[in-house]
Amino acid sequence: MNNTKVCLANRPIGLPSPSAWSYQTSPLGPLKEGEILIKQHYISIDPAMRGWIREGKSYIPPVEIGEVMRAGTVGEVVKVNKNDHFKVGDFVSGAGGVQQYTCTNGQGFYKINTKHAPLTTYLGALGMPGMTAYFGILEVGKIKTGDVVLVSGAAGAVGSLVGQIAKLKGCKVVGIAGGAEKCKYLIDDLGFDAAIDYKNNNVFSELKVHCHDGIDVYFDNVGGDILDIALLKLRRHARIVICGAISQYNATAEIKGPSNYLSLLVNRATMQGMVVFDYADRYHEGMAQIGSWLADGSIKTREDVYEGIDKFNDTLLRLFSGEKIGKLLLKVS
Amino acid sequence: MNNTKVCLANRPIGLPSPSAWSYQTSPLGPLKEGEILIKQHYISIDPAMRGWIREGKSYIPPVEIGEVMRAGTVGEVVKVNKNDHFKVGDFVSGAGGVQQYTCTNGQGFYKINTKHAPLTTYLGALGMPGMTAYFGILEVGKIKTGDVVLVSGAAGAVGSLVGQIAKLKGCKVVGIAGGAEKCKYLIDDLGFDAAIDYKNNNVFSELKVHCHDGIDVYFDNVGGDILDIALLKLRRHARIVICGAISQYNATAEIKGPSNYLSLLVNRATMQGMVVFDYADRYHEGMAQIGSWLADGSIKTREDVYEGIDKFNDTLLRLFSGEKIGKLLLKVS
Repeated sequence: MNNTKVCLANRPIGLPSPSAWSYQTSPLGPLKEGEILIKQHYISIDPAMRGWIREGKSYIPPVEIGEVMRAGTVGEVVKVNKNDHFKVGDFVSGAGGVQQYTCTNGQGFYKINTKHAPLTTYLGALGMPGMTAYFGILEVGKIKTGDVVLVSGAAGAVGSLVGQIAKLKGCKVVGIAGGAEKCKYLIDDLGFDAAIDYKNNNVFSELKVHCHDGIDVYFDNVGGDILDIALLKLRRHARIVICGAISQYNATAEIKGPSNYLSLLVNRATMQGMVVFDYADRYHEGMAQIGSWLADGSIKTREDVYEGIDKFNDTLLRLFSGEKIGKLLLKVS
Repeated sequence: MNNTKVCLANRPIGLPSPSAWSYQTSPLGPLKEGEILIKQHYISIDPAMRGWIREGKSYIPPVEIGEVMRAGTVGEVVKVNKNDHFKVGDFVSGAGGVQQYTCTNGQGFYKINTKHAPLTTYLGALGMPGMTAYFGILEVGKIKTGDVVLVSGAAGAVGSLVGQIAKLKGCKVVGIAGGAEKCKYLIDDLGFDAAIDYKNNNVFSELKVHCHDGIDVYFDNVGGDILDIALLKLRRHARIVICGAISQYNATAEIKGPSNYLSLLVNRATMQGMVVFDYADRYHEGMAQIGSWLADGSIKTREDVYEGIDKFNDTLLRLFSGEKIGKLLLKVS
C-alpha cells in the first residue's frame, strides 16, 4: 500500500506555484507499537496555510522545507498496533497533513461521531473555522444584543459563521464579500441584514448606507484597504477582531498597515488579535453550541470540495482567487 | 484693559506657520451677571493642539476658523459679577484658550490650590498630561508588577510620567527619546531602566538588548516607524496604548499605518486608543495619587517655559522639533 504526501519544496514568494511542492509516493511501512494508521478522507484547505510556509516567528513554527505540509484532516483508522485509544473503523480528526495516510501515535487526534454531523463538518463548523468564529466573535468581539457587526470574508468558512452567530445573538450583521453570488448567499441563505460586494461597489459608500451610525464590532479576515475603510466607521468603544489578513498573505512588498489606525484613539476602540488554539480547553463548549445550532437549522454551512491530492495547489489557490464559497476541502480518499 | 487673543486664521498644511494665526487685541467689556474674568498666567502647549485645528470628525470638534485657539490654562480670577463659585484671588484651571484674559461663566473651570503644588503643575502632572499618563498606563495598559514597559516620547510631559508610574508599580521601564540629553535625563533623574536615543541609534537593535524577552506594554505617543518596530517585539497578550502619534501630526501625505500590525494576531495582543476625558469622573483619584507621589519625591517633573503670547507659534513648533524636555508652557502674564 502506497502513501502519497505533499511536502514543502521551497518557500514561495507571492502566490504559491506547483513548484513549491514535492510529491512523494512510497510504500507504507509496518506500524510501531502504539501507532495507528489513518486513511484520510478530506484535507482542510485554510488561509492560515499561507502563513505556515513563511519563515520566521509566528504563533506556530513554520513547516520546514522537506516536511509534509501541515493540514487539518478527517479520516478513518484502518490499522492499529496496540493502541488503547483508537480502534479500526474510528473516524478521527487532527493535523494529519497533506497526505493520503497518516501514521501516528494518536496524539492530537480525536474521535468524531459521524452520526451527529457529516465527516466534513468536523473540518468546518465543528472544526477550526467554527471554533475561530465562535470564540472570536463572542470572546474577542464581545458582541451584545443590538450591536452592529461587520464581517469581511463573509462568505468564507469563518466569516459565514461569525455573521450567523452574531445574528443569533441579536446583532445587526453586514457582510463584505466579492461578487453578487456571494452577497446573495449571505442575505438569502444566511440571513445577513446586508451584504457589500467589494469587487463591484465602493465599500465606504455602502458602509455609510448599511452602517449609518457606525460599527460596534468589525471581524477582520482580510486586512488591507477594507480594514482601513472599516476603521473610518467605528463607533465609540468599538472592537476590531484581527483574525486574518488574506489580502496580504501573498504580498511581495511590505504589508499595508492600517493608515486610519488613529481612529482607535478617536473612538477609544480596541484592535485585538486572536489565535483559535488559545481556546482549546473550551472547544467542547463551542462544539456543543454550534452542534445544536446546526441540528436545529439555526446555522447553515456550505462546502466547496475538490478531489485528488494532485489538485492540492490548485485548490489552495482558490482561497486567494475568491472563487469559492464556504469551507474549502480536498477529498483524497 | 486690553485682551490679546490668538485665533485660528486658517488650517495649516504640515507644520503650522505664524500665518495660521491672527492676533486680535481689543478692550475687555463689562462682565455679564454670573461671569468671572480670569487673568491667565500660563498656557499649556500640547501635541493634541495640532489635531484640534484639523478639519473632520475627532474626539472633540475642531477649533473653527476665527475662533480663539483652544488651550488649557491656569490663571487668577480678577473680577467677578455675582458668581457663587468663584471669588477674586482664586486660582483656576480650565480650557481658557490662547489669550491673556478669559471671560466665562466658570463652567469647566475648577479652583486649584497653589499651596499644594506650583501653579504650573496643574497643567502638567496634576493636569491633562498627568491624568493621561495615570489612566492610560493603569487602565488601558493594565500594568502588573514585573511587566516590561516601553514608552515613546519618554521625555515629554506624558511619557515621563508614564515611565515613573510604571516604575512605582514594579515594572521594568524602557524609554525612547531623541538625543543624549533626554536619555540621560530618563535614567539619571527619572530612574528609567534604559533609554533608547532614536535619533542616534537603531531602535530595533536597542530593543533587542533592552527588551530582550519582549514588551508587555507599549505606551505610544509617537506612531510611525517606532510603533512599527515596537510591534515586532511584543510578548504574548501585550497591550499597546495608543495615546498619540506626534510623528504623524504634521504629515502632508497619508498617515503611515503600522505595517507590522499582524503581530497583534501572532501575539494575541491588543492595541487600544484612549482619550483622557473619559476618565473625568476619576480625575480626583488620579490627582490625589500623583499629588502624593510629587509630595514625597517619588515623581519628578520638568518644565520648559517660554514667555509672551506673541511666541505662541514658536513655542508650538518646539513640540515637533523635539527640542524640549518635560511640560511645555507659555507664560502670558
